Parts: sequence; structure tokens; C-alpha cells
Amino acid sequence: MDPLALLTQDKLNQAVRLLSELDLDAWLTFARESSQTPDPALDLIYPFGVTWPSAFLITRGGERMAFLGRHDAPNAEKLGAFSRIVPYDESVKPALVQSLAELEPHALAVNRSLNDPASDGLTSGMQQILEGYFAQAGISPEAIVSSEALLGSLRGRKTAYELAHIQTAVETTQHIFDDIGAQLHIGMTEVEVANLFHQAVRRLELGYAWDPQGNPLVNTGPDSSIGHTVPGELKIEAGHLVHVDFGIRQEGFCSDLQRTWYILKPDQSGVPEAVADAWRAARAALLAGAEAMRPGALGWEVDAAARTTLVERGYPEYQHAFGHHLGRVAHDGGTVLGPRWDRYGQLPYGRLEADNVFAIELGVQVEGFGPVYLEENVRVTDGGIAWLSQPQTDIWLIPPGDS
Amino acid sequence: MDPLALLTQDKLNQAVRLLSELDLDAWLTFARESSQTPDPALDLIYPFGVTWPSAFLITRGGERMAFLGRHDAPNAEKLGAFSRIVPYDESVKPALVQSLAELEPHALAVNRSLNDPASDGLTSGMQQILEGYFAQAGISPEAIVSSEALLGSLRGRKTAYELAHIQTAVETTQHIFDDIGAQLHIGMTEVEVANLFHQAVRRLELGYAWDPQGNPLVNTGPDSSIGHTVPGELKIEAGHLVHVDFGIRQEGFCSDLQRTWYILKPDQSGVPEAVADAWRAARAALLAGAEAMRPGALGWEVDAAARTTLVERGYPEYQHAFGHHLGRVAHDGGTVLGPRWDRYGQLPYGRLEADNVFAIELGVQVEGFGPVYLEENVRVTDGGIAWLSQPQTDIWLIPPGDS
Repeated sequence: MDPLALLTQDKLNQAVRLLSELDLDAWLTFARESSQTPDPALDLIYPFGVTWPSAFLITRGGERMAFLGRHDAPNAEKLGAFSRIVPYDESVKPALVQSLAELEPHALAVNRSLNDPASDGLTSGMQQILEGYFAQAGISPEAIVSSEALLGSLRGRKTAYELAHIQTAVETTQHIFDDIGAQLHIGMTEVEVANLFHQAVRRLELGYAWDPQGNPLVNTGPDSSIGHTVPGELKIEAGHLVHVDFGIRQEGFCSDLQRTWYILKPDQSGVPEAVADAWRAARAALLAGAEAMRPGALGWEVDAAARTTLVERGYPEYQHAFGHHLGRVAHDGGTVLGPRWDRYGQLPYGRLEADNVFAIELGVQVEGFGPVYLEENVRVTDGGIAWLSQPQTDIWLIPPGDS
Repeated sequence: MDPLALLTQDKLNQAVRLLSELDLDAWLTFARESSQTPDPALDLIYPFGVTWPSAFLITRGGERMAFLGRHDAPNAEKLGAFSRIVPYDESVKPALVQSLAELEPHALAVNRSLNDPASDGLTSGMQQILEGYFAQAGISPEAIVSSEALLGSLRGRKTAYELAHIQTAVETTQHIFDDIGAQLHIGMTEVEVANLFHQAVRRLELGYAWDPQGNPLVNTGPDSSIGHTVPGELKIEAGHLVHVDFGIRQEGFCSDLQRTWYILKPDQSGVPEAVADAWRAARAALLAGAEAMRPGALGWEVDAAARTTLVERGYPEYQHAFGHHLGRVAHDGGTVLGPRWDRYGQLPYGRLEADNVFAIELGVQVEGFGPVYLEENVRVTDGGIAWLSQPQTDIWLIPPGDS
């Protein structure tokens, strides 16, 4: 059996169980032209794109219905994951309204969320269309709820298949880091370093965990601003910290890692003390955060453990979250291990669950040298975490060599 | 100057002119985590992804404002396309609400559309957030309108840069068709044919115009169902029609073409009459549609010209639209050259404009042989159309050869 079909069946079964667990009657995904406005929920339950308005209705009773343009129906049939497939030529409306009316749901989840982009795939126009359908089906607006909790767990609780694939992506990424790390030398520009990663992605026939314009991010030295900026023309020099943030997508699953190198000056055998101190602080903060991770912990509690450790060692707070779910994409939705800032909404208040996979990251800018940044990938276990990546325990040193 | 920056400046200037033309005060794009829920409008005005909630506010007076997470601000600065960039650390809300309040718009367009997926990038959760901002800024719900008309023209009126890039993508695609067409032979499976296209995409470092699971589509013989199904294990045999639908993305712009071959039997020197007749009918219908294309024509009128021609020649109606805009993606939003069916909403009622680029397509299933399908890419000119692709004028013949 096609592994993709098996995975889809697994996730649909998981969805049915979650409907019971969360006391919801049904979950509706309503999407169109997914190449332009993809609903990220679709990845979990239908591994193809849709063009025409399409609906996927999963009920607590175990019905898994797909309402699709006629051309898409054969793909859905091949999956063997749906209990009912309704193809249409002219409009999805009649069959969908009828099924909704028969269902008479009191709690129907749709992909609308204030907090979680990964649960907010229903577009505003499609929502307006749905509201008309709901009215015709006799479903009151009060019955409509957010699928945020359902999707957070459906996406977050990785199956064995998902875990194995993320692990593979992480290992491939580490090989690429090792390979390219050995090629870094004085005089290379950030763009040239980035191109080595792009070449590896093409050579190994991989995809990107996020937009390749900013993947990898490459920073060298004190004049390169850390964050979501694209690689530039700055050149690696002796005495620079070199930092790369990079993630791949391999067979549908992602990695997201950061690594830091230091370019020795001719008279140096190790990193200067300012760099060493920053590294120790960042590493201690990462480990403090990792230590706080276990099923039931709240996202912001984990972030606070890391953040406090860094600040106590005299470094400024990082201006982002400590961790995010990792899976089909780099930012895989749901609970964020982040501070209770407005821009994270309710996401830091979510709880960690067993078999969640997170990317955890933080760092500092070292005055005069550049960024020291760490990012590792971990799985939440019953008792804590397991490392999916081989953590970077020291800054990697590059001899000055020939430039 | 970076060509991407120039293109972005061009499109922002075009947007300012369209606000006047359409009597709108301003246009607001509000997006977050664009790797998961991309707003297709963003491609036109900000050629990077965003992670945190970000707003792009363009006014009739010529202001081009970007409200961005601090990490994203340097990218925006580099573009030189915005008159004001407002970076934030904790929340986009205060600065955005203040600018909206100062603007006092009577007609503010947002990316919400019942009809056009490419103008419906505002998600339902983000819309709910915006409604709160609008209330605080004193903007009444009646002032909020759809950006559908603005985006249809902004996307549809291709600049010289955009036209040149689509032309290049089309030419590259034709080379790939020629190259792979010469390799088709009896015994190859649909999957094997598809893999040749995937290899070409990788070798030439191209992207896909749509999801590679269904790109290319490959159909061989009478048992292969035409449409959006993925290639299967059916093998090319003598007497088969072989059909491929394929499109690439090259430097950000797309092609979308279909080509048809016939595999000769040992005793044949041309296609059987049933196939020849189907081809002539399909080609006549395509040309009739192309003939109806000119600025001011309505989408459904163009479709009807093609559809009627095909039906008059005794073939069934194709179950899709005759044409769609082509640009940054294969289905580039806006007016559809399609029938007035429910699933196309108001899109067939749009008017063609000069410098629109369309993919036009239709075909028939020939009983006992397989699909005959044509798809070409054209530009709307002041007087009619110009062909961007070299139209396929006859079915391409493949000798039976060695299998």
C-alpha cells in the first residue's frame, strides 16, 4: 500500500478520535485553488492539491467525506481514506449543504483561528460562502467553532511515520552542514555560502523547509544583522562568527537547524573569551529550556526557563519564541514555546504533548564578532525530550587557512 | 538595481494608479506566516515571505507603507519600494491602527473575494483581527470593499518585465517538450514519462507552475482518465494517444502547455480518421476562442466561442474553462474565460485587458485511443492576441520503433 495513503488514513483516524476527545461533532475543511491559497490543514488529510471549491467533512461517528471537482475524485479514490467521495461538475453546494443538514451538528469546527496561522486556512471569502451554506443547512452561527485545538493535536501528535521522516530530514541536514562547514573559508561572501546550500538541496533532490530566499540565512561578522534577512555580499574574515539557519523538506517532512562557526585569526587557537562566554550562556539557556519540556508543560513556561537563564547571565532577551512545532513545514502551527507577547496571541498558553516535535533556538549578538546562535530539533517524550539532532556543543572552529 | 526591486516598485506604482482608476482610497494586505497561508497578493508587492502579522497599506495619494516584524524590515528597506517602513517587536496593532485612523478611508480594499481565489488571501482569523482594528480606527464596515477589481488588473496587466519572463518560461517549456517528445516510446509508463519531466526541471534548476504531484499530467491510451489525476502505471502502446500537461516556473514566472502525440502502429503512416477529426475539431475550437479574445471582451464570451465550435462539430463540451490568467502561478487569478457555471462565480463576467496573459486549453477524449488536448499561452494585444507559445498545429507522430 502507498505509504502516503496509509499516512492519510492514520491522520483521518486520529481526527475522528480527536473529535470525541474534544467533544466536537464534526470538522469541515473548505478550500479552493490550493496552489495559491493553501489551507495548511489540507496537508494532513488530503495529500493533493485542489482547484475547485472542495470540502472535507469528518464526523465524530467516523464518516470521512470528500466533496470534490470530478477531475479530483480519482485521486481521492486511490487513497482509500474516505468513506464517501462526492464528485461534482458545476457546484459543490447542493451535496455539501445536504450532508451538513443531515448532520445537524451542535459543534462544527472550521479552520478559522485568531492565534494559529496553521489553523486559519479558511479564507475570508470562503468563510462568507460557507455562512450561506450553513444558513441553508439550518446550522446556527453558535455551532461554528475553531478547529484550533483539534488541528494543534492532529498536527502535533506525530505518528511513527511522521517521526521517522523528520528524523531523516534532520540527519540529511546535519550531513549538509558537515559537508559545507568543511568548505567555509576567508573571502567567501554570505551569498556564496548560501549557494553551497542551494546546490546541496538540488543535488540531493530535496525541498526547502521555508522560502529559499531566506533559507539558508547566512551571517558573517559583526556587520551582518541576524534575523530574517537574505544573505548579502559581506565576506567571511578572520575573527568572524559565521552563522547559518537552514532547513530542508525531505519526503514531505522538515528540519530546522542553526549552526555557528568561528574563523580563527592566525595567532588564535580558540575563540576569544567574549565569544566563549556568549556561547556558554546561549547553550545553558537552550538546555534550561529543553529541561523544562515535558507533556503538560505550557509553552510560555518553557520559553521563560530559557529566557531567564540567558538574561541572568547578562545577555539581552532574544526577540522571538524559544521554540515552534516542526513537521510538514518549519513552523508547524499549534503551541508556541514563546513569551506572552501580543503577537503570539494565545499560542504560548498551549500545552506540550507526547510525540510533539519542536525546533528550539536562541542566541546572542556578540559585539565585534557576530551572532552566536543555536537551534536543535527535539521530540517530547513521556518523561522529557529526546534529541532528534546531534546538538552542537561547541562553536566549530575554522583555521584561517589560505584566503 | 536589483530587477526584483524594480519590478516591485513598478507594481506598487501600478497599484497607486489603479486606486485612482477604481475610486478607492487605499488597499490593505494583512498577512502572517506566509509559508503556510500565503496571501497571493503579497507576491505582487513584497517579494519575500513574512512570519509575523504584517500589513501593507497603499494609498491613492501614493503612500506605500509596510508594517513588519523587526527582522523583516531590512529586506523591505533594500527594496526601496516603500515610502514608510514601520518595524515592530511586540505588536503590529498600535502603528497600523494609527495609520488607518489618520487615513479615514471611505473605500478601503482588502483581499477578500467570493469569486477570485487570488484576491481572497485574507484568512478568516486575520479578518476577525482586522475588524477589531477597523473599529478602533473608526472605520465603518461599509468602507471595507473587496480588492478583487484592483488585484485583477494589477495581476492581469503584465509589465514588460513580466511579459518577458513569461515568454522565457514558455520557450524553456517548449524545449523540454521537444526533448522529451523525442524519447517517448512503446512500453514506457505514465510515471516514467513524468519522471523525465521532473529530471528536466531539476537539471535546469526550474520550479513548477503547480504542484509537481500533478505536474506533469501524463495520459496514455483510452484507459487513462483525463484531468487532474496523477500519472499511473499504464504503458504507452501502439495506437495510443499520449497527452502531457506541464508547466514550469522560471525566475518567478510560469508556463502552462499541453501537447499530444500519437503512437503509430507498424502499418500506419498517419493518425486514424477518428483521431484526425477530433484534432481538427479541437484545434478549430481553440482558434475560435483565440479569435474572440480582445480587450473589452467578456470571459464567458470567449469560452462560448470555443465551446460552441466544438459542440457544433459533434463533440461533447469540455468540463472546465477555456482559459485562465497565467503569470506568477499557473492559475493567476482574475477573469476566467469560462462558462457561467456556479463554480466560477462572477469570474467569467470579467473583461479582458491589453497585456493580459492567458493559458487557453480544450480537448476531447477519443474513444479507443485516448485524449486529444491542446493548450497554448497567449498575450492580449490592442487588436487581438499574440501567441507566446508556438502552437501545436498537428498531432505529433511517434513511430512504433523498438519497444
